[in-house]
Amino acid sequence: MKQTSSWASFAGKLAVYEHASDVCQCPMTFAVYTPPQASQGPVPVLWYLSGLTCNWSNVMEKSGIQRAAAEHGLMVIAPDTSPRGDDVADDDAYDLGQGAGFYLTATQAPWSKHYRMDQYILDELTPLVAERFPADMRRQGITGHSMGGHGALTLHLKHADRFRSVSAFSPCSSPSEAPWGQKAFGAYLGDDREAWKAYDAEHLVRAQPSKATILIDTGNADPFLDEQLMPQRFIDACEAAGQSVESRLQPGYDHSYYFIASLIDQHVAHHAQVLKSVPGSRF
Amino acid sequence: MKQTSSWASFAGKLAVYEHASDVCQCPMTFAVYTPPQASQGPVPVLWYLSGLTCNWSNVMEKSGIQRAAAEHGLMVIAPDTSPRGDDVADDDAYDLGQGAGFYLTATQAPWSKHYRMDQYILDELTPLVAERFPADMRRQGITGHSMGGHGALTLHLKHADRFRSVSAFSPCSSPSEAPWGQKAFGAYLGDDREAWKAYDAEHLVRAQPSKATILIDTGNADPFLDEQLMPQRFIDACEAAGQSVESRLQPGYDHSYYFIASLIDQHVAHHAQVLKSVPGSRF
Repeated sequence: MKQTSSWASFAGKLAVYEHASDVCQCPMTFAVYTPPQASQGPVPVLWYLSGLTCNWSNVMEKSGIQRAAAEHGLMVIAPDTSPRGDDVADDDAYDLGQGAGFYLTATQAPWSKHYRMDQYILDELTPLVAERFPADMRRQGITGHSMGGHGALTLHLKHADRFRSVSAFSPCSSPSEAPWGQKAFGAYLGDDREAWKAYDAEHLVRAQPSKATILIDTGNADPFLDEQLMPQRFIDACEAAGQSVESRLQPGYDHSYYFIASLIDQHVAHHAQVLKSVPGSRF
Repeated sequence: MKQTSSWASFAGKLAVYEHASDVCQCPMTFAVYTPPQASQGPVPVLWYLSGLTCNWSNVMEKSGIQRAAAEHGLMVIAPDTSPRGDDVADDDAYDLGQGAGFYLTATQAPWSKHYRMDQYILDELTPLVAERFPADMRRQGITGHSMGGHGALTLHLKHADRFRSVSAFSPCSSPSEAPWGQKAFGAYLGDDREAWKAYDAEHLVRAQPSKATILIDTGNADPFLDEQLMPQRFIDACEAAGQSVESRLQPGYDHSYYFIASLIDQHVAHHAQVLKSVPGSRF
Protein backbone atom coordinates (compact mmCIF):
# COMPACT_ATOMS: atom_id res chain seq x y z
CA MET A 1 0.00 0.00 0.00
CA LYS A 2 1.39 3.38 -0.93
CA GLN A 3 0.12 6.85 -0.14
CA THR A 4 -0.25 8.77 -3.40
CA SER A 5 -1.35 12.13 -1.97
CA SER A 6 -2.38 13.79 1.27
CA TRP A 7 -3.76 17.05 2.56
CA ALA A 8 -4.40 18.65 5.92
CA SER A 9 -8.15 18.96 6.36
CA PHE A 10 -10.05 20.27 9.39
CA ALA A 11 -7.04 19.67 11.62
CA GLY A 12 -6.94 16.04 10.48
CA LYS A 13 -5.52 14.33 7.42
CA LEU A 14 -7.02 13.27 4.13
CA ALA A 15 -4.92 10.79 2.20
CA VAL A 16 -5.28 8.64 -0.90
CA TYR A 17 -3.78 5.18 -1.12
CA GLU A 18 -3.17 2.66 -3.85
CA HIS A 19 -2.68 -1.04 -3.26
CA ALA A 20 -2.64 -4.28 -5.22
CA SER A 21 -5.97 -5.99 -4.57
CA ASP A 22 -6.05 -9.77 -4.42
CA VAL A 23 -9.83 -9.80 -4.50
CA CYS A 24 -10.22 -7.48 -7.50
CA GLN A 25 -6.96 -8.59 -9.12
CA CYS A 26 -5.99 -5.05 -10.02
CA PRO A 27 -4.61 -1.95 -8.32
CA MET A 28 -7.27 -0.27 -6.18
CA THR A 29 -7.45 3.26 -4.86
CA PHE A 30 -9.20 4.55 -1.74
CA ALA A 31 -9.16 7.60 0.52
CA VAL A 32 -9.09 7.88 4.28
CA TYR A 33 -9.96 10.93 6.33
CA THR A 34 -8.39 10.66 9.77
CA PRO A 35 -9.86 13.16 12.24
CA PRO A 36 -7.72 15.00 14.79
CA GLN A 37 -9.15 12.85 17.61
CA ALA A 38 -7.27 9.85 16.22
CA SER A 39 -4.06 11.20 17.72
CA GLN A 40 -5.54 10.18 21.08
CA GLY A 41 -6.39 6.60 20.03
CA PRO A 42 -8.59 4.57 17.71
CA VAL A 43 -11.75 6.25 16.42
CA PRO A 44 -14.97 4.86 14.93
CA VAL A 45 -15.13 4.33 11.19
CA LEU A 46 -17.69 5.60 8.71
CA TRP A 47 -17.66 3.99 5.27
CA TYR A 48 -18.88 6.18 2.41
CA LEU A 49 -19.82 4.36 -0.80
CA SER A 50 -20.06 6.59 -3.85
CA GLY A 51 -22.45 6.54 -6.77
CA LEU A 52 -22.14 5.84 -10.48
CA THR A 53 -19.08 7.37 -12.21
CA CYS A 54 -17.52 8.49 -8.91
CA ASN A 55 -14.36 7.66 -7.05
CA TRP A 56 -12.98 8.74 -3.66
CA SER A 57 -12.68 12.35 -4.74
CA ASN A 58 -16.33 13.30 -5.12
CA VAL A 59 -17.24 12.91 -1.47
CA MET A 60 -13.97 14.28 -0.17
CA GLU A 61 -13.99 17.34 -2.44
CA LYS A 62 -17.67 18.18 -2.47
CA SER A 63 -19.63 16.87 0.49
CA GLY A 64 -17.99 18.58 3.45
CA ILE A 65 -17.89 15.20 5.23
CA GLN A 66 -14.48 15.95 6.74
CA ARG A 67 -15.92 18.88 8.66
CA ALA A 68 -18.58 16.73 10.28
CA ALA A 69 -16.20 13.81 10.80
CA ALA A 70 -13.72 16.12 12.56
CA GLU A 71 -16.51 17.46 14.75
CA HIS A 72 -17.60 13.99 15.86
CA GLY A 73 -14.25 12.23 15.72
CA LEU A 74 -15.01 9.70 12.99
CA MET A 75 -12.64 8.26 10.40
CA VAL A 76 -14.09 8.20 6.88
CA ILE A 77 -13.15 5.51 4.35
CA ALA A 78 -14.05 6.13 0.70
CA PRO A 79 -13.46 3.12 -1.55
CA ASP A 80 -13.61 3.34 -5.31
CA THR A 81 -16.82 2.35 -7.12
CA SER A 82 -15.32 -0.49 -9.15
CA PRO A 83 -12.11 -2.15 -10.21
CA ARG A 84 -10.34 -0.09 -12.85
CA GLY A 85 -7.62 -0.40 -15.44
CA ASP A 86 -6.93 -1.25 -19.04
CA ASP A 87 -7.19 -4.96 -18.26
CA VAL A 88 -10.53 -4.62 -16.47
CA ALA A 89 -13.74 -5.25 -18.42
CA ASP A 90 -15.64 -2.06 -19.17
CA ASP A 91 -18.62 -0.69 -21.03
CA ASP A 92 -19.16 2.64 -22.76
CA ALA A 93 -22.26 3.32 -20.68
CA TYR A 94 -21.87 5.27 -17.44
CA ASP A 95 -23.98 2.73 -15.54
CA LEU A 96 -22.07 -0.47 -16.31
CA GLY A 97 -18.45 -1.48 -15.95
CA GLN A 98 -15.76 0.79 -14.53
CA GLY A 99 -17.27 3.31 -12.12
CA ALA A 100 -20.37 1.12 -11.75
CA GLY A 101 -19.40 -1.86 -9.62
CA PHE A 102 -22.70 -1.96 -7.65
CA TYR A 103 -20.96 -3.41 -4.58
CA LEU A 104 -21.52 -7.01 -5.62
CA THR A 105 -19.55 -10.09 -6.69
CA ALA A 106 -20.10 -10.68 -10.38
CA THR A 107 -20.68 -14.24 -11.52
CA GLN A 108 -20.88 -13.62 -15.26
CA ALA A 109 -18.06 -13.23 -17.78
CA PRO A 110 -16.32 -10.94 -18.49
CA TRP A 111 -17.15 -9.22 -15.20
CA SER A 112 -16.48 -12.05 -12.76
CA LYS A 113 -12.70 -11.74 -12.96
CA HIS A 114 -12.43 -8.31 -11.30
CA TYR A 115 -15.87 -7.10 -10.17
CA ARG A 116 -16.05 -8.11 -6.49
CA MET A 117 -16.58 -4.85 -4.66
CA ASP A 118 -18.49 -6.27 -1.68
CA GLN A 119 -15.85 -8.94 -1.07
CA TYR A 120 -13.17 -6.33 -1.58
CA ILE A 121 -14.64 -4.05 1.07
CA LEU A 122 -15.46 -6.82 3.54
CA ASP A 123 -12.47 -9.11 3.23
CA GLU A 124 -9.60 -6.98 1.97
CA LEU A 125 -10.06 -3.29 2.63
CA THR A 126 -11.50 -3.80 6.11
CA PRO A 127 -8.49 -5.74 7.45
CA LEU A 128 -6.17 -3.31 5.70
CA VAL A 129 -7.84 -0.36 7.44
CA ALA A 130 -7.81 -2.20 10.76
CA GLU A 131 -4.10 -2.88 10.43
CA ARG A 132 -2.86 0.42 9.07
CA PHE A 133 -5.08 3.14 10.60
CA PRO A 134 -6.14 4.16 14.11
CA ALA A 135 -9.59 2.66 13.57
CA ASP A 136 -11.87 1.21 16.24
CA MET A 137 -13.35 -1.58 14.11
CA ARG A 138 -15.96 -2.47 16.72
CA ARG A 139 -17.61 0.80 15.78
CA GLN A 140 -18.26 0.96 12.06
CA GLY A 141 -21.05 2.69 10.22
CA ILE A 142 -21.85 2.83 6.52
CA THR A 143 -23.45 5.38 4.23
CA GLY A 144 -23.47 6.18 0.54
CA HIS A 145 -25.09 7.94 -2.37
CA SER A 146 -27.32 6.51 -5.09
CA MET A 147 -25.60 3.28 -6.21
CA GLY A 148 -23.54 3.74 -3.05
CA GLY A 149 -26.73 4.07 -1.03
CA HIS A 150 -27.69 0.68 -2.42
CA GLY A 151 -24.29 -0.56 -1.31
CA ALA A 152 -24.64 0.88 2.19
CA LEU A 153 -28.11 -0.56 2.73
CA THR A 154 -27.26 -4.01 1.45
CA LEU A 155 -23.94 -4.29 3.28
CA HIS A 156 -25.60 -3.14 6.49
CA LEU A 157 -28.51 -5.54 6.20
CA LYS A 158 -26.20 -8.48 5.47
CA HIS A 159 -23.59 -7.52 8.07
CA ALA A 160 -25.46 -5.58 10.73
CA ASP A 161 -23.07 -6.81 13.40
CA ARG A 162 -20.26 -5.09 11.55
CA PHE A 163 -21.87 -1.93 10.14
CA ARG A 164 -23.81 -0.91 13.20
CA SER A 165 -25.09 2.42 11.90
CA VAL A 166 -26.47 3.03 8.42
CA SER A 167 -27.76 5.88 6.31
CA ALA A 168 -28.12 6.66 2.64
CA PHE A 169 -28.51 9.60 0.29
CA SER A 170 -30.89 9.01 -2.63
CA PRO A 171 -30.32 5.26 -2.53
CA CYS A 172 -31.25 2.85 -5.28
CA SER A 173 -33.02 0.68 -2.70
CA SER A 174 -35.11 -1.50 -5.03
CA PRO A 175 -32.55 -2.18 -7.75
CA SER A 176 -34.37 -5.24 -9.10
CA GLU A 177 -37.22 -2.91 -10.04
CA ALA A 178 -35.06 -0.05 -11.38
CA PRO A 179 -33.44 0.26 -14.83
CA TRP A 180 -29.98 0.83 -13.33
CA GLY A 181 -30.20 -2.29 -11.20
CA GLN A 182 -31.83 -4.46 -13.85
CA LYS A 183 -29.13 -3.62 -16.36
CA ALA A 184 -26.25 -4.09 -13.93
CA PHE A 185 -27.60 -7.19 -12.18
CA GLY A 186 -28.43 -8.80 -15.51
CA ALA A 187 -24.88 -8.23 -16.72
CA TYR A 188 -23.02 -9.05 -13.51
CA LEU A 189 -25.28 -11.76 -12.04
CA GLY A 190 -27.15 -13.16 -15.03
CA ASP A 191 -30.82 -13.38 -15.84
CA ASP A 192 -31.91 -15.48 -12.85
CA ARG A 193 -33.57 -12.93 -10.61
CA GLU A 194 -33.16 -15.22 -7.60
CA ALA A 195 -29.48 -14.31 -7.65
CA TRP A 196 -30.38 -10.61 -7.53
CA LYS A 197 -32.08 -10.90 -4.15
CA ALA A 198 -28.79 -10.99 -2.26
CA TYR A 199 -28.13 -7.46 -3.52
CA ASP A 200 -31.58 -5.93 -3.30
CA ALA A 201 -32.20 -3.85 -0.18
CA GLU A 202 -35.97 -4.12 -0.51
CA HIS A 203 -35.75 -7.89 -0.56
CA LEU A 204 -33.09 -8.05 2.15
CA VAL A 205 -34.98 -5.89 4.61
CA ARG A 206 -38.05 -8.10 4.22
CA ALA A 207 -35.92 -11.20 4.83
CA GLN A 208 -33.57 -9.95 7.53
CA PRO A 209 -34.35 -6.56 9.05
CA SER A 210 -31.76 -5.10 11.41
CA LYS A 211 -32.10 -3.48 14.82
CA ALA A 212 -30.67 -0.19 13.54
CA THR A 213 -32.66 2.85 12.46
CA ILE A 214 -31.96 3.45 8.78
CA LEU A 215 -31.73 7.15 7.92
CA ILE A 216 -32.48 8.02 4.29
CA ASP A 217 -32.71 11.39 2.56
CA THR A 218 -33.80 11.86 -1.02
CA GLY A 219 -34.48 15.12 -2.85
CA ASN A 220 -37.99 15.57 -4.15
CA ALA A 221 -36.51 17.28 -7.23
CA ASP A 222 -34.22 14.33 -7.92
CA PRO A 223 -34.64 13.45 -11.61
CA PHE A 224 -34.15 9.76 -10.77
CA LEU A 225 -36.75 9.73 -8.00
CA ASP A 226 -39.62 7.90 -9.63
CA GLU A 227 -37.84 5.64 -12.08
CA GLN A 228 -34.68 4.59 -10.23
CA LEU A 229 -34.97 5.38 -6.53
CA MET A 230 -38.60 4.77 -5.52
CA PRO A 231 -38.03 5.42 -1.82
CA GLN A 232 -41.61 4.57 -0.88
CA ARG A 233 -41.08 0.94 -1.93
CA PHE A 234 -38.30 0.61 0.62
CA ILE A 235 -40.29 2.40 3.30
CA ASP A 236 -43.19 0.01 2.74
CA ALA A 237 -40.85 -2.99 2.94
CA CYS A 238 -39.33 -1.67 6.17
CA GLU A 239 -42.73 -1.17 7.71
CA ALA A 240 -43.84 -4.64 6.70
CA ALA A 241 -40.68 -6.15 8.17
CA GLY A 242 -40.57 -4.12 11.36
CA GLN A 243 -37.40 -2.32 10.29
CA SER A 244 -36.94 1.08 11.88
CA VAL A 245 -36.45 3.64 9.10
CA GLU A 246 -36.50 7.41 8.84
CA SER A 247 -36.84 8.19 5.13
CA ARG A 248 -37.33 11.84 4.24
CA LEU A 249 -38.12 13.63 1.01
CA GLN A 250 -36.18 16.88 1.09
CA PRO A 251 -37.94 19.71 -0.76
CA GLY A 252 -36.15 21.23 -3.75
CA TYR A 253 -33.05 19.05 -3.68
CA ASP A 254 -31.80 17.04 -6.63
CA HIS A 255 -29.26 14.20 -7.00
CA SER A 256 -26.14 16.36 -6.75
CA TYR A 257 -23.44 16.80 -4.15
CA TYR A 258 -25.06 20.15 -3.30
CA PHE A 259 -27.83 17.99 -1.84
CA ILE A 260 -25.44 15.67 -0.02
CA ALA A 261 -23.48 18.60 1.41
CA SER A 262 -26.70 20.15 2.72
CA LEU A 263 -27.57 17.00 4.70
CA ILE A 264 -24.15 15.52 5.53
CA ASP A 265 -24.05 17.01 9.03
CA GLN A 266 -27.26 15.23 9.98
CA HIS A 267 -26.05 11.91 8.59
CA VAL A 268 -22.68 12.02 10.29
CA ALA A 269 -24.37 13.02 13.55
CA HIS A 270 -26.70 10.03 13.17
CA HIS A 271 -23.75 7.67 12.81
CA ALA A 272 -21.84 9.27 15.67
CA GLN A 273 -24.81 8.91 18.01
CA VAL A 274 -25.22 5.21 17.23
CA LEU A 275 -21.52 4.40 17.31
CA LYS A 276 -20.99 6.23 20.59
CA SER A 277 -23.62 4.01 22.19
CA VAL A 278 -21.88 0.74 21.26
CA PRO A 279 -20.97 -0.97 24.55
CA GLY A 280 -17.30 -1.12 25.35
CA SER A 281 -16.52 1.86 23.22
CA ARG A 282 -13.58 4.00 24.19
CA PHE A 283 -15.02 6.66 21.90
CA MET B 1 -29.05 37.83 -18.04
CA LYS B 2 -30.11 34.21 -18.11
CA GLN B 3 -29.92 31.55 -15.46
CA THR B 4 -28.08 28.54 -16.86
CA SER B 5 -28.38 26.21 -13.86
CA SER B 6 -29.52 26.13 -10.25
CA TRP B 7 -29.52 23.87 -7.24
CA ALA B 8 -31.08 23.84 -3.79
CA SER B 9 -28.25 24.21 -1.27
CA PHE B 10 -28.52 24.50 2.51
CA ALA B 11 -32.15 25.54 2.23
CA GLY B 12 -31.14 28.37 -0.11
CA LYS B 13 -30.42 28.52 -3.81
CA LEU B 14 -27.21 28.35 -5.80
CA ALA B 15 -27.57 29.56 -9.38
CA VAL B 16 -25.29 30.30 -12.31
CA TYR B 17 -25.95 33.16 -14.68
CA GLU B 18 -24.64 34.27 -18.03
CA HIS B 19 -24.89 37.81 -19.35
CA ALA B 20 -23.42 39.94 -22.10
CA SER B 21 -20.81 42.16 -20.47
CA ASP B 22 -20.34 45.68 -21.84
CA VAL B 23 -17.17 46.14 -19.82
CA CYS B 24 -15.49 42.90 -20.88
CA GLN B 25 -17.15 42.84 -24.30
CA CYS B 26 -17.92 39.14 -24.08
CA PRO B 27 -20.38 36.83 -22.35
CA MET B 28 -19.59 36.52 -18.64
CA THR B 29 -20.62 33.86 -16.16
CA PHE B 30 -21.07 34.17 -12.41
CA ALA B 31 -22.73 32.31 -9.55
CA VAL B 32 -24.90 33.57 -6.71
CA TYR B 33 -25.71 31.73 -3.52
CA THR B 34 -28.87 33.15 -1.99
CA PRO B 35 -29.33 32.06 1.63
CA PRO B 36 -32.74 31.14 3.05
CA GLN B 37 -32.85 34.41 5.04
CA ALA B 38 -33.25 36.33 1.77
CA SER B 39 -36.89 35.29 1.64
CA GLN B 40 -37.41 37.77 4.52
CA GLY B 41 -35.67 40.69 2.80
CA PRO B 42 -32.30 41.88 1.48
CA VAL B 43 -29.20 40.25 2.95
CA PRO B 44 -25.56 41.33 3.08
CA VAL B 45 -23.29 40.33 0.22
CA LEU B 46 -19.97 38.51 0.33
CA TRP B 47 -17.89 38.58 -2.84
CA TYR B 48 -15.60 35.61 -3.39
CA LEU B 49 -12.82 36.09 -5.93
CA SER B 50 -11.23 32.87 -7.15
CA GLY B 51 -7.64 32.06 -7.97
CA LEU B 52 -5.75 31.16 -11.13
CA THR B 53 -7.51 28.69 -13.47
CA CYS B 54 -10.75 28.79 -11.47
CA ASN B 55 -14.28 29.88 -12.20
CA TRP B 56 -17.44 30.09 -10.04
CA SER B 57 -17.55 26.34 -9.55
CA ASN B 58 -14.44 25.79 -7.42
CA VAL B 59 -15.66 27.71 -4.41
CA MET B 60 -19.25 26.59 -4.71
CA GLU B 61 -18.37 22.91 -5.13
CA LYS B 62 -15.44 22.60 -2.78
CA SER B 63 -15.29 25.23 -0.05
CA GLY B 64 -18.49 24.66 1.89
CA ILE B 65 -19.13 28.42 1.77
CA GLN B 66 -22.87 27.91 1.28
CA ARG B 67 -23.11 26.21 4.65
CA ALA B 68 -21.53 29.15 6.45
CA ALA B 69 -23.41 31.70 4.35
CA ALA B 70 -26.71 30.01 5.19
CA GLU B 71 -25.80 30.02 8.86
CA HIS B 72 -25.07 33.75 8.88
CA GLY B 73 -27.54 34.87 6.22
CA LEU B 74 -25.07 36.15 3.63
CA MET B 75 -25.40 36.13 -0.13
CA VAL B 76 -22.26 34.95 -1.94
CA ILE B 77 -21.28 36.24 -5.39
CA ALA B 78 -18.61 34.33 -7.30
CA PRO B 79 -17.49 36.10 -10.49
CA ASP B 80 -15.31 34.40 -13.07
CA THR B 81 -11.54 34.99 -13.00
CA SER B 82 -11.30 36.56 -16.46
CA PRO B 83 -13.14 37.23 -19.67
CA ARG B 84 -13.39 34.08 -21.75
CA GLY B 85 -14.17 32.97 -25.29
CA ASP B 86 -12.64 32.20 -28.65
CA ASP B 87 -12.39 35.93 -29.41
CA VAL B 88 -10.66 36.74 -26.12
CA ALA B 89 -6.86 36.95 -26.03
CA ASP B 90 -5.30 34.02 -24.24
CA ASP B 91 -1.99 32.39 -23.40
CA ASP B 92 -1.02 28.75 -23.04
CA ALA B 93 0.31 29.36 -19.54
CA TYR B 94 -2.05 28.85 -16.61
CA ASP B 95 -1.05 32.16 -15.07
CA LEU B 96 -1.78 34.53 -17.97
CA GLY B 97 -4.84 35.12 -20.11
CA GLN B 98 -8.12 33.30 -19.65
CA GLY B 99 -8.53 32.17 -16.04
CA ALA B 100 -5.90 34.69 -14.93
CA GLY B 101 -7.50 38.14 -15.09
CA PHE B 102 -5.85 39.41 -11.88
CA TYR B 103 -8.79 41.74 -11.17
CA LEU B 104 -7.31 44.68 -13.08
CA THR B 105 -7.93 46.79 -16.17
CA ALA B 106 -5.37 45.92 -18.80
CA THR B 107 -3.81 48.77 -20.76
CA GLN B 108 -1.66 46.72 -23.14
CA ALA B 109 -2.63 45.00 -26.39
CA PRO B 110 -3.97 42.41 -26.93
CA TRP B 111 -5.33 42.27 -23.37
CA SER B 112 -6.85 45.73 -23.11
CA LYS B 113 -9.89 44.90 -25.21
CA HIS B 114 -11.48 42.41 -22.77
CA TYR B 115 -9.42 42.21 -19.56
CA ARG B 116 -11.18 44.62 -17.18
CA MET B 117 -12.17 42.46 -14.25
CA ASP B 118 -12.06 45.19 -11.58
CA GLN B 119 -14.22 47.51 -13.67
CA TYR B 120 -16.49 44.60 -14.47
CA ILE B 121 -17.04 43.79 -10.80
CA LEU B 122 -17.37 47.39 -9.65
CA ASP B 123 -19.36 48.98 -12.46
CA GLU B 124 -21.29 46.16 -14.10
CA LEU B 125 -21.76 43.14 -11.88
CA THR B 126 -22.42 45.19 -8.76
CA PRO B 127 -25.39 47.11 -10.22
CA LEU B 128 -26.65 43.90 -11.80
CA VAL B 129 -26.62 42.15 -8.43
CA ALA B 130 -28.25 45.15 -6.75
CA GLU B 131 -31.04 45.16 -9.31
CA ARG B 132 -31.74 41.46 -9.66
CA PHE B 133 -31.09 39.90 -6.25
CA PRO B 134 -32.29 40.50 -2.65
CA ALA B 135 -28.95 42.10 -1.75
CA ASP B 136 -28.36 44.78 0.87
CA MET B 137 -25.62 46.65 -0.99
CA ARG B 138 -24.78 48.84 2.00
CA ARG B 139 -23.32 45.68 3.53
CA GLN B 140 -20.75 44.14 1.23
CA GLY B 141 -17.65 42.18 2.13
CA ILE B 142 -14.99 40.68 -0.07
CA THR B 143 -12.73 37.64 0.15
CA GLY B 144 -10.80 35.44 -2.22
CA HIS B 145 -8.08 32.89 -2.73
CA SER B 146 -4.54 33.37 -4.06
CA MET B 147 -4.93 35.63 -7.13
CA GLY B 148 -8.44 36.23 -5.77
CA GLY B 149 -6.97 37.16 -2.41
CA HIS B 150 -4.96 39.79 -4.25
CA GLY B 151 -8.23 40.92 -5.82
CA ALA B 152 -10.05 41.05 -2.50
CA LEU B 153 -7.30 43.02 -0.74
CA THR B 154 -6.85 45.54 -3.54
CA LEU B 155 -10.57 46.09 -4.15
CA HIS B 156 -11.12 46.57 -0.43
CA LEU B 157 -8.24 48.99 0.00
CA LYS B 158 -9.36 51.08 -2.98
CA HIS B 159 -13.08 50.91 -2.13
CA ALA B 160 -13.25 50.45 1.61
CA ASP B 161 -16.54 52.34 1.75
CA ARG B 162 -18.05 49.67 -0.47
CA PHE B 163 -16.35 46.45 0.67
CA ARG B 164 -16.57 46.98 4.39
CA SER B 165 -15.23 43.62 5.47
CA VAL B 166 -12.26 41.84 3.95
CA SER B 167 -10.40 38.59 4.26
CA ALA B 168 -8.18 36.44 2.08
CA PHE B 169 -6.92 32.89 1.77
CA SER B 170 -3.28 32.54 0.71
CA PRO B 171 -3.32 35.92 -1.04
CA CYS B 172 -0.74 37.12 -3.49
CA SER B 173 -0.42 40.34 -1.52
CA SER B 174 2.87 41.65 -2.93
CA PRO B 175 2.35 40.85 -6.61
CA SER B 176 4.98 43.32 -7.82
CA GLU B 177 7.54 41.19 -5.99
CA ALA B 178 6.15 37.78 -7.04
CA PRO B 179 6.68 35.91 -10.32
CA TRP B 180 2.92 35.56 -10.91
CA GLY B 181 2.34 39.26 -10.49
CA GLN B 182 5.41 40.38 -12.37
CA LYS B 183 4.47 38.26 -15.38
CA ALA B 184 0.81 39.30 -15.37
CA PHE B 185 1.35 42.98 -14.58
CA GLY B 186 4.08 43.20 -17.21
CA ALA B 187 1.76 41.76 -19.83
CA TYR B 188 -1.45 43.54 -18.85
CA LEU B 189 -0.05 46.87 -17.59
CA GLY B 190 3.33 47.19 -19.31
CA ASP B 191 6.82 47.55 -17.97
CA ASP B 192 6.33 50.78 -16.03
CA ARG B 193 6.14 49.57 -12.46
CA GLU B 194 4.45 52.80 -11.39
CA ALA B 195 1.32 51.48 -13.09
CA TRP B 196 1.53 48.31 -11.03
CA LYS B 197 1.10 50.14 -7.74
CA ALA B 198 -2.63 50.56 -8.21
CA TYR B 199 -2.95 46.76 -8.08
CA ASP B 200 -0.43 45.91 -5.41
CA ALA B 201 -1.90 45.36 -1.94
CA GLU B 202 1.43 45.95 -0.21
CA HIS B 203 1.75 49.33 -1.89
CA LEU B 204 -1.91 50.22 -1.44
CA VAL B 205 -1.98 49.48 2.26
CA ARG B 206 1.02 51.74 2.79
CA ALA B 207 -0.66 54.52 0.81
CA GLN B 208 -4.24 54.17 1.99
CA PRO B 209 -4.88 51.81 4.91
CA SER B 210 -8.51 51.10 5.79
CA LYS B 211 -10.31 51.04 9.10
CA ALA B 212 -11.20 47.37 8.71
CA THR B 213 -9.36 44.43 10.23
CA ILE B 214 -7.96 42.32 7.42
CA LEU B 215 -8.17 38.59 8.13
CA ILE B 216 -5.66 36.43 6.24
CA ASP B 217 -4.96 32.72 6.46
CA THR B 218 -2.14 30.99 4.65
CA GLY B 219 -0.98 27.39 4.99
CA ASN B 220 2.57 26.91 6.15
CA ALA B 221 2.84 23.92 3.75
CA ASP B 222 1.70 26.04 0.81
CA PRO B 223 4.21 25.40 -2.00
CA PHE B 224 3.80 29.02 -3.14
CA LEU B 225 4.42 30.48 0.30
CA ASP B 226 7.92 31.88 -0.04
CA GLU B 227 8.10 32.72 -3.72
CA GLN B 228 4.60 34.00 -4.54
CA LEU B 229 2.70 34.81 -1.35
CA MET B 230 5.20 36.22 1.14
CA PRO B 231 2.62 37.03 3.81
CA GLN B 232 5.17 38.64 6.11
CA ARG B 233 5.76 41.46 3.60
CA PHE B 234 2.11 42.42 3.80
CA ILE B 235 2.05 42.12 7.58
CA ASP B 236 5.04 44.45 7.79
CA ALA B 237 3.39 46.95 5.45
CA CYS B 238 0.19 46.85 7.51
CA GLU B 239 2.08 47.46 10.72
CA ALA B 240 4.00 50.35 9.19
CA ALA B 241 0.78 51.89 7.91
CA GLY B 242 -1.34 51.33 11.00
CA GLN B 243 -3.58 48.86 9.19
CA SER B 244 -5.28 46.35 11.47
CA VAL B 245 -4.48 42.86 10.20
CA GLU B 246 -4.78 39.33 11.54
CA SER B 247 -2.56 37.19 9.35
CA ARG B 248 -2.13 33.58 10.42
CA LEU B 249 0.08 30.75 9.21
CA GLN B 250 -1.97 27.58 9.52
CA PRO B 251 0.14 24.51 10.26
CA GLY B 252 0.12 21.70 7.70
CA TYR B 253 -2.19 23.30 5.16
CA ASP B 254 -1.36 23.77 1.51
CA HIS B 255 -2.87 25.88 -1.30
CA SER B 256 -5.87 23.63 -1.98
CA TYR B 257 -9.57 23.91 -1.38
CA TYR B 258 -9.14 21.44 1.48
CA PHE B 259 -7.38 24.32 3.21
CA ILE B 260 -10.06 26.85 2.28
CA ALA B 261 -12.85 24.52 3.42
CA SER B 262 -11.11 24.06 6.77
CA LEU B 263 -11.09 27.83 7.44
CA ILE B 264 -14.16 29.06 5.57
CA ASP B 265 -16.37 29.09 8.66
CA GLN B 266 -14.04 31.50 10.42
CA HIS B 267 -13.84 33.80 7.40
CA VAL B 268 -17.57 33.95 6.82
CA ALA B 269 -18.09 34.58 10.54
CA HIS B 270 -15.58 37.45 10.35
CA HIS B 271 -17.51 39.05 7.51
CA ALA B 272 -20.87 38.51 9.19
CA GLN B 273 -19.67 40.14 12.38
CA VAL B 274 -18.43 43.25 10.56
CA LEU B 275 -21.41 43.54 8.25
CA LYS B 276 -23.89 43.13 11.09
CA SER B 277 -22.32 46.12 12.82
CA VAL B 278 -22.80 48.48 9.85
CA PRO B 279 -25.13 51.25 11.06
CA GLY B 280 -28.59 51.23 9.58
CA SER B 281 -28.43 47.55 8.77
CA ARG B 282 -31.64 45.63 8.73
CA PHE B 283 -29.52 42.50 8.93
